[in-house]
Amino acid sequence: MTPTKSWRQWLPTLPILNWGRHYDRVTLASDLTAALIVTIMLIPQSLAYAMLAGLPLEVGLYACIAPLLLYTIFGSSHVLAVGPVAVVSLMTATAIGSHATAGSPMYWSIALTLAFLSGTILLLMGIFRLGFLANFLSTPVISGFITASALLIAASQLKTLMGVAAEGNNFIELITSLMRQIPQTHGLTLMIGVFALLFLLAIRLGFKQLLVRWGIAEKIATGITRTAPVFLIALTILLAWIFQWQAQGVKIVGTIPQSLPPFTLPLWDMALWKELALPALLISVVGFVESVSIGQTLAAQRRQRIEPNQELVALGASNLSASFTGGFPVTGGFARSVVNFDAGAQTPAAGGFAAIGIMLAALLLTPALYYLPQAILSATIMVAVLSLVDIGILKKTWAYSKSDFASVVATLLVTLWVGVEAGLLVGIGVSLALFIFRTSQPHIATIGLVPGTEYFRNVLRHDVLVSPQVVSLRVDGSLYFANSRSLEDRINQTVADNPKIQHLLLQCSAINDIDASALASLESLNQHLREAGITLHLTEIKGPVMDKLQHTHFLRDLSGKIFLTHYQAMHELAPEIEQVSSRAN
Amino acid sequence: MTPTKSWRQWLPTLPILNWGRHYDRVTLASDLTAALIVTIMLIPQSLAYAMLAGLPLEVGLYACIAPLLLYTIFGSSHVLAVGPVAVVSLMTATAIGSHATAGSPMYWSIALTLAFLSGTILLLMGIFRLGFLANFLSTPVISGFITASALLIAASQLKTLMGVAAEGNNFIELITSLMRQIPQTHGLTLMIGVFALLFLLAIRLGFKQLLVRWGIAEKIATGITRTAPVFLIALTILLAWIFQWQAQGVKIVGTIPQSLPPFTLPLWDMALWKELALPALLISVVGFVESVSIGQTLAAQRRQRIEPNQELVALGASNLSASFTGGFPVTGGFARSVVNFDAGAQTPAAGGFAAIGIMLAALLLTPALYYLPQAILSATIMVAVLSLVDIGILKKTWAYSKSDFASVVATLLVTLWVGVEAGLLVGIGVSLALFIFRTSQPHIATIGLVPGTEYFRNVLRHDVLVSPQVVSLRVDGSLYFANSRSLEDRINQTVADNPKIQHLLLQCSAINDIDASALASLESLNQHLREAGITLHLTEIKGPVMDKLQHTHFLRDLSGKIFLTHYQAMHELAPEIEQVSSRAN
Repeated sequence: MTPTKSWRQWLPTLPILNWGRHYDRVTLASDLTAALIVTIMLIPQSLAYAMLAGLPLEVGLYACIAPLLLYTIFGSSHVLAVGPVAVVSLMTATAIGSHATAGSPMYWSIALTLAFLSGTILLLMGIFRLGFLANFLSTPVISGFITASALLIAASQLKTLMGVAAEGNNFIELITSLMRQIPQTHGLTLMIGVFALLFLLAIRLGFKQLLVRWGIAEKIATGITRTAPVFLIALTILLAWIFQWQAQGVKIVGTIPQSLPPFTLPLWDMALWKELALPALLISVVGFVESVSIGQTLAAQRRQRIEPNQELVALGASNLSASFTGGFPVTGGFARSVVNFDAGAQTPAAGGFAAIGIMLAALLLTPALYYLPQAILSATIMVAVLSLVDIGILKKTWAYSKSDFASVVATLLVTLWVGVEAGLLVGIGVSLALFIFRTSQPHIATIGLVPGTEYFRNVLRHDVLVSPQVVSLRVDGSLYFANSRSLEDRINQTVADNPKIQHLLLQCSAINDIDASALASLESLNQHLREAGITLHLTEIKGPVMDKLQHTHFLRDLSGKIFLTHYQAMHELAPEIEQVSSRAN
Repeated sequence: MTPTKSWRQWLPTLPILNWGRHYDRVTLASDLTAALIVTIMLIPQSLAYAMLAGLPLEVGLYACIAPLLLYTIFGSSHVLAVGPVAVVSLMTATAIGSHATAGSPMYWSIALTLAFLSGTILLLMGIFRLGFLANFLSTPVISGFITASALLIAASQLKTLMGVAAEGNNFIELITSLMRQIPQTHGLTLMIGVFALLFLLAIRLGFKQLLVRWGIAEKIATGITRTAPVFLIALTILLAWIFQWQAQGVKIVGTIPQSLPPFTLPLWDMALWKELALPALLISVVGFVESVSIGQTLAAQRRQRIEPNQELVALGASNLSASFTGGFPVTGGFARSVVNFDAGAQTPAAGGFAAIGIMLAALLLTPALYYLPQAILSATIMVAVLSLVDIGILKKTWAYSKSDFASVVATLLVTLWVGVEAGLLVGIGVSLALFIFRTSQPHIATIGLVPGTEYFRNVLRHDVLVSPQVVSLRVDGSLYFANSRSLEDRINQTVADNPKIQHLLLQCSAINDIDASALASLESLNQHLREAGITLHLTEIKGPVMDKLQHTHFLRDLSGKIFLTHYQAMHELAPEIEQVSSRAN
């Protein structure tokens, strides 16, 4: 590696330089079509997620524009569409909630600060190639967290749908508060909301198939299905204007300023930064994990690859840009990326064109949204998040592994009962603790020779040959401080169970590491066995483990030998077994 | 198992019923001799550790009596002597320090409460067989913690030795404060202290060998060496009385009440209990680990065994008794147990007799200690703890494993700079985090056939046969959420490096577990490889792992096969390799 390369590798790469070089008219046409469809879809979604985050609605539009442009430059996925998403908006609302009142200028400033911190964290993780840290969010924890967040979001939108004011710091409080508000339900608002909900659900669940069955071409059916939410919005705006719903107590969106994204600055307040550091970190990691998993799924379908560390840089740049252009934390969204993919987006340029579309909407379209009932936006959010609920994960993990099931349940319950941050932290903690617990009690098998082969397998599972004088154990796990005693216990038990034992063989093929505590334990085992007249041998030690043991007292004092293969050891110590074995062959 | 047995197993057993049955006159004589020697040794030690804990000196004696008796009934070690020990006394002082002033009645009450909580924790851990939890204190963490504690204790005693008042919340502050006090050093106190220190060090380091070389019989030399500390005490008491040292500013022990252990009660204050819970837990675990390691070392020398969960019950009972008889947290002490062992103690009865000895001392001997200079007790403590300092562990772990070294250093530095509780917690946290980190990046080897055998080893370390079409990887670690991505990356790399690859074989002999996240990752790998025209096969899957995989989608959708042995797989997929191999043979 040349010195030039060594500093250059720390610079972010610009994927746009690769795909931009081959950009042609055909690609442009595909990208423009996809951008148009994504823009139409993004307008109501971004307004809705801004509402969910407790921010003025136009902030949702601002949070699309610069981030989409920046992702176009830095992103490695060709179809990922970034912007406000449901779970991150919920996390944003939770993080700001304790510092300011929703809707206040301070609240927005803190949202900008959160985007700034989150962007900085993502960028640093990308530059220092720390993408692997996201692996500590296990699949069960993510599933449990997303499901619980979706339920929380759906519950939080019920109040807008019912036209009441409900409060609650967790799912139970929220639901209880809503129950108590049932008598105050605003009838017309509820009717509008329920109608919108049913309409959107119907579209999502089978409208397209219905249209196709009615003889409409698949392509046109898809187009109708996709524009249906926009039709709903147009229809309700019209109805609200004609019947002056706001005079009857229906809450409407009201004035949304017509403007390009403003130039804004995050707050430079160290005390605030300190308090926002943990939420910002969690928002970054959740956003990154969501985004990368969407990106990878879609890339694999086209035999492309995305580079996780490059994604970190791209998401970092997107969030930083959001903090300077009046936005809030963003990440890659599932539905819009799938739509972008299906609509035929070929390069990240599609995202750039969508940014221009949203910019035009922010400049020109917002007055048209004046009469839009808020309940419509709530219905949009609810339908979007209900697809994230995955109760099946409970059944699946229960069948596969009780400890994965425990991680899902812990994350789910704590997220619902306490909150999103606590839920994530408890989930990570529980999954790590259960991993430690599992490895602290390794499976240890007594093994014997499979007749006619050189292989040794568990005596309890296979019909194998054993010797009463030469007993073989296989340890299925690395030896470290938390499990070294359990090996001692098992060996003491083995010695007690085999009164004729002269040689104890440890097959080390599954031992990937031996730490200092386990080494001390092996030293004392060797000592005790020697005193009891039993010789300890080790077989099939792996290279990296042998390298560490090479110069230790343990190897010097070992009463027995080190064998390259377990078969060689048995050949030397218990040749009678081998004769039986070859006869069996 | 009969139903009677199933509830009986939860009851503590009474080892005294076993050894008591065979008790005879020979054993009695041995035990009595050992008890006398231990009593003489314990008197100054227990006074000194009470002083270290910030308690009235007689509390040290009280803390020996009931605990020794209770351990005699419940303990499974035949030679362990319980009572106040250095590290636990330091931890006690630290825990109480923020709640009361040393020497006040409140301080003592909190010490009783700490013993009560610690006893309860130990007893519950014993009853619920949670002894394995102590395994989470790794050898490096214990070594680092004990060494740092010893240095802290030695530094804290310097002020008594110098006759000054020094304060400090950590090692650095303590040493700085002492430096500033140097001009105020009380000359006579320092002279007495330094003389005592040198005298005790000389005895410990080579006095016995010197006596033997002078022609004195070994047994007599041992006796002289052991009684030398008592001689020192007698001598300094005499000198202090004759020269009226206290009139010259030397701090003396003063009046120690003549009394049997009083009946006391711990404080029933839930707020206090909550604050003491963590210190009590740490004291319990450290005390248990120290005690069990001493007990096991000594038991092994006589081919006896101790039962860790029974030890928890015994230590729990000892601490509970201490809380009701004016004591403070106790555990098994190293020096006194070794002395008990060397002096020929045969059964725990020796401890019971020593309890009676201490009781007599508390009733009759205390007035004689009036003139004892406190500096003598400090010198006793310093010499005792300096033997606990193990700086060699740094060199040893550095050579063996950098991550064990990091655990030692982190524990050592945090204990010195912040305190005992923080040091232990950071040590446990660091050692767990490093374990997770190591397992999150498993060693993955490309393997080939060792010619003339059925074994496969790392291509980088052994001269082995490989096929360009059939590539074999061996994963040296369980697959779980934190490392599943690193397997994906390695497989993608392998595919890129082997353009002719048709079959990818994963040797799973070192995979001890596959969790839900890793399963999801394997599912997507299988999918991607299939799309690239590469078949994925698994070999040598262990029984427990196979049990879990049995009914999963992954196994149903696997493009390749499951082979019992890697050799069978190569035999079927790449027979040409086998021919080369047999020719080599």
